[in-house]
Amino acid sequence: MFDNIDKTNISELGEFGLIHHLTQAVELTEASTVKGIGDDAAVLDFANKKTLISTDLLLEGIHFDLRYVPLKHLGYKAVQVNLSDIYAMNGIASQITFSIGLSSKFPLEAVEEIYEGALIACKKFNVDLIGGDTSASAQGLVISVTSIGYAEENEIAYRSGAKEGDLICVSGDLGGAYVGLQLLEREKQIYLENPNIQPDLEGKDYIIERQLKPEARKDVIQLLEALHVKPHAMIDVSDGLASEILHICKASNVGCKLYEDKIPIDPMTYETAREFGLDPTVCALSGGEDYELLFTVPQSDYDKIKGQLDISVIGYITETAEGCNMISKSGHVHEIKAQGWNAFNK
Amino acid sequence: MFDNIDKTNISELGEFGLIHHLTQAVELTEASTVKGIGDDAAVLDFANKKTLISTDLLLEGIHFDLRYVPLKHLGYKAVQVNLSDIYAMNGIASQITFSIGLSSKFPLEAVEEIYEGALIACKKFNVDLIGGDTSASAQGLVISVTSIGYAEENEIAYRSGAKEGDLICVSGDLGGAYVGLQLLEREKQIYLENPNIQPDLEGKDYIIERQLKPEARKDVIQLLEALHVKPHAMIDVSDGLASEILHICKASNVGCKLYEDKIPIDPMTYETAREFGLDPTVCALSGGEDYELLFTVPQSDYDKIKGQLDISVIGYITETAEGCNMISKSGHVHEIKAQGWNAFNK
Repeated sequence: MFDNIDKTNISELGEFGLIHHLTQAVELTEASTVKGIGDDAAVLDFANKKTLISTDLLLEGIHFDLRYVPLKHLGYKAVQVNLSDIYAMNGIASQITFSIGLSSKFPLEAVEEIYEGALIACKKFNVDLIGGDTSASAQGLVISVTSIGYAEENEIAYRSGAKEGDLICVSGDLGGAYVGLQLLEREKQIYLENPNIQPDLEGKDYIIERQLKPEARKDVIQLLEALHVKPHAMIDVSDGLASEILHICKASNVGCKLYEDKIPIDPMTYETAREFGLDPTVCALSGGEDYELLFTVPQSDYDKIKGQLDISVIGYITETAEGCNMISKSGHVHEIKAQGWNAFNK
Repeated sequence: MFDNIDKTNISELGEFGLIHHLTQAVELTEASTVKGIGDDAAVLDFANKKTLISTDLLLEGIHFDLRYVPLKHLGYKAVQVNLSDIYAMNGIASQITFSIGLSSKFPLEAVEEIYEGALIACKKFNVDLIGGDTSASAQGLVISVTSIGYAEENEIAYRSGAKEGDLICVSGDLGGAYVGLQLLEREKQIYLENPNIQPDLEGKDYIIERQLKPEARKDVIQLLEALHVKPHAMIDVSDGLASEILHICKASNVGCKLYEDKIPIDPMTYETAREFGLDPTVCALSGGEDYELLFTVPQSDYDKIKGQLDISVIGYITETAEGCNMISKSGHVHEIKAQGWNAFNK
């Protein structure tokens, strides 16, 4: 990944020196941050709003492969995927803690890149970095992010709020991150077999970015607010559409009907999936890591939603007894099953 | 550590199955928890109080050694050390998230033990487990805990509030956790050299417990409240007394004078340190992991504090120019230097 020549050894700095060095660039801009880094705990003030908390663990060799994930992208993505959970509550993310465990062979410059990516994400999404933990790791790179946000009580969209007749909507397009991963894995194999062959990713920017640099959909939350649409239920698409809609149906005690031909798939995702011999719909259903928002709205909101290019209506909520089904392009009914990514089977 | 015969393989359950299994026993009892596990984010309500957040990463081979740390103790300790940071703000801890990364070779029963320990800590300290992340780990065991708590704005004790003339107080006794660690490390070496020799830890319960099963000092926070004492500055002793008092002095822009003969050291800590050829005072100053509370109070509070057996007055705050010094038992002045534990030098 990187050589250690002329690089700064972290152990020279020690833990406090490293934290001081890395957090010099941290600026606090959120009104709700009373005290950030530098005490036993951060202090936040959400006045009368509810506090939202979510946390993710990202482990080398499970969630990322340093052979093709640039460190800055890794820091950026680690923040994005966690902010996505706050937006999926229809809330606004306002702070994160960012913890990192790293081998002492990791040079300071590498850690700086991870932090730089994390701070770019913070700045872009108006989120303060208010704490974290920095440790040596005896093994691989470990990143743990906790996101904090807020929402008015009546604005919060739980998974459990879907009602029969609701329209099922999804932002952006699906399957791209998974197909991008296949591409990166293929090029890695080719490279490992012959290091003289350069990766051939030309013209595949979009799906590579979907994998390496996902963007949490704060803009969709803001759009819904502007449209005066309050989703009945919402979840972010981290494990694939199938897994997520099943979460909503189970939590809401409802069924659903999805239409395959309504599922938004980018042409590049579609073509590249085909090149790999994959069914693009399966990539959307079970691929994961798209970090789009899946939500349900009452039918009365259809007029507000229909003109939005970035939101697709892909089906509707039914009564529980009808089960969870997808109508295929050929008109067949398929039961939806979760085949999302299972890290324990890797 | 454990054999895998007749143990349940985690990969059979998958991530959601594992989370479901582990969190069955979770009960929510805190008034401030609106929604715990089961959505994209937890929802909390601190009304008009300030929200406190702290996070810790615990990594196998760095923070714990599974060869002598029982898994239930590990889960318990992971929660304790993180709650300690909330109490160190003079706040009340109310929730935690508990994330875990584990090798697929880890049987379910082992993970259950870690969770059981964590939940015992939650119950004892009236804290709700409201979320977390569960992942496979390609390497060792990874635990990440985030604690959430609350406090009235005017009750929060920052590190930066110490004032010239303040009394410096510490709860409990110091150095025990470090000496307990030396004992465990010695017995591990003996065992590795000859597995037929059983560990000789008889009569050393107190310092072994200080290492394996530290207790966050919520009781001290409650005691101070009952005594109507609001500390000017506070920190928990995780890296040793020297490191912590220097944090307070730096953040408060003051100096300090500590008296060696006032530093509380348990007789067992003292004797065992001597057996190892260690200076007990150095163990207290630089040992770490005691999780006692170090705080400063105005002199006018002396009458309230003096009768408390569990609180020792160990010195006072001076002006910055006087520096940070300890007066030894022989009357000599020593400059206090942080020689706390540096994980990167391990």
